[in-house]
Amino acid sequence: MKLIAVTNDCLPDHRLAEVLLAIQPSVDAVILREKSKTDREMVRLIDHLVESGFEQQKLIVHGRVDIALACGIGRVQIPGHGIPPALIKNKIPELSLGKSVHSYNEAISASEDGADWVLYGHLFETRSKEGLSARGTVELSKIIADLPIPTYAIGGIQPSHLKELARLGVAGIAIMSSIFDSDHPGQAIRKYRQELEYVRN
Amino acid sequence: MKLIAVTNDCLPDHRLAEVLLAIQPSVDAVILREKSKTDREMVRLIDHLVESGFEQQKLIVHGRVDIALACGIGRVQIPGHGIPPALIKNKIPELSLGKSVHSYNEAISASEDGADWVLYGHLFETRSKEGLSARGTVELSKIIADLPIPTYAIGGIQPSHLKELARLGVAGIAIMSSIFDSDHPGQAIRKYRQELEYVRN
Repeated sequence: MKLIAVTNDCLPDHRLAEVLLAIQPSVDAVILREKSKTDREMVRLIDHLVESGFEQQKLIVHGRVDIALACGIGRVQIPGHGIPPALIKNKIPELSLGKSVHSYNEAISASEDGADWVLYGHLFETRSKEGLSARGTVELSKIIADLPIPTYAIGGIQPSHLKELARLGVAGIAIMSSIFDSDHPGQAIRKYRQELEYVRN
Repeated sequence: MKLIAVTNDCLPDHRLAEVLLAIQPSVDAVILREKSKTDREMVRLIDHLVESGFEQQKLIVHGRVDIALACGIGRVQIPGHGIPPALIKNKIPELSLGKSVHSYNEAISASEDGADWVLYGHLFETRSKEGLSARGTVELSKIIADLPIPTYAIGGIQPSHLKELARLGVAGIAIMSSIFDSDHPGQAIRKYRQELEYVRN
């Protein structure tokens, strides 16, 4: 089961870089979801991360195929209202695309439309989706059963959930608030990593 | 001298399509600057325009290289804080890129960075840039003189300005409010077109 961090668009650049470098050893990938940044700021952030020693292969750009292309990043997480994956694959087949989905039907469509993975959520209650009801794991397990591509889960996932999620067969989990709202992001992510190692054995 | 319309992100889709089809015969290009639309909505709008008979070759996408690529549009207008043109040209050399600039130095940088044209503004007072002081034509004429690529102008340009702008050697003008805030966009654009024909002769 993979462990993915999703940035929360709240940290100043130098702090964000610091946190990402600190959590790098414990995560399999980072989705850069910095929606308030300009395109040029995104390019600068990615350049800075790579120059500072963050592995380019661990980066996933949220939403923006062009920024990924410009920066040599091979993976993009497409939001629900993003460019349909098929249109992107048609032009840039070498790009890997994840699609964010919120239902079984959206997951099936994403898979048929050429997505390489889906990210389903939000699973449990979370600060970043306050007031929206959580989806739970019932639909998630149907998606996992029926999709030929990997299903990731996001939303309020705590280390204590990992055993159950592993049992359901999720390909990985994505974490935002628990890392980026924490005063000790390195410690926070290590709790997930330790639990994952425990679940694996 | 070319005549370019820039959409103002205020019209509902059906009205926008109606207006664009109505002004199509009078304009050389349209910059789709619909910043509040989702990526999927942009793709749908472009599909709808092309299916309705709008010439694909007359479309320029504002800011989004990936949406242009996905929709088979060959030209993108890059804002001041957009992805640097050189990074885009490096990956997709066949794309034509205009850069929006607000000073002589920005124009020189854009040209050196591989932009195919610059769009300088805002030239005169305009409703879409209320409270910001207009730049006038002095810097514009320096840019025209020193840049090896075409210089377009934008901002509060009225038909009465065209003679002077033609004398300065601008490659074309871009119009937003005068068309899209008008109750009669077709009539509004024809006044520019008629004046351009007059200036040409």
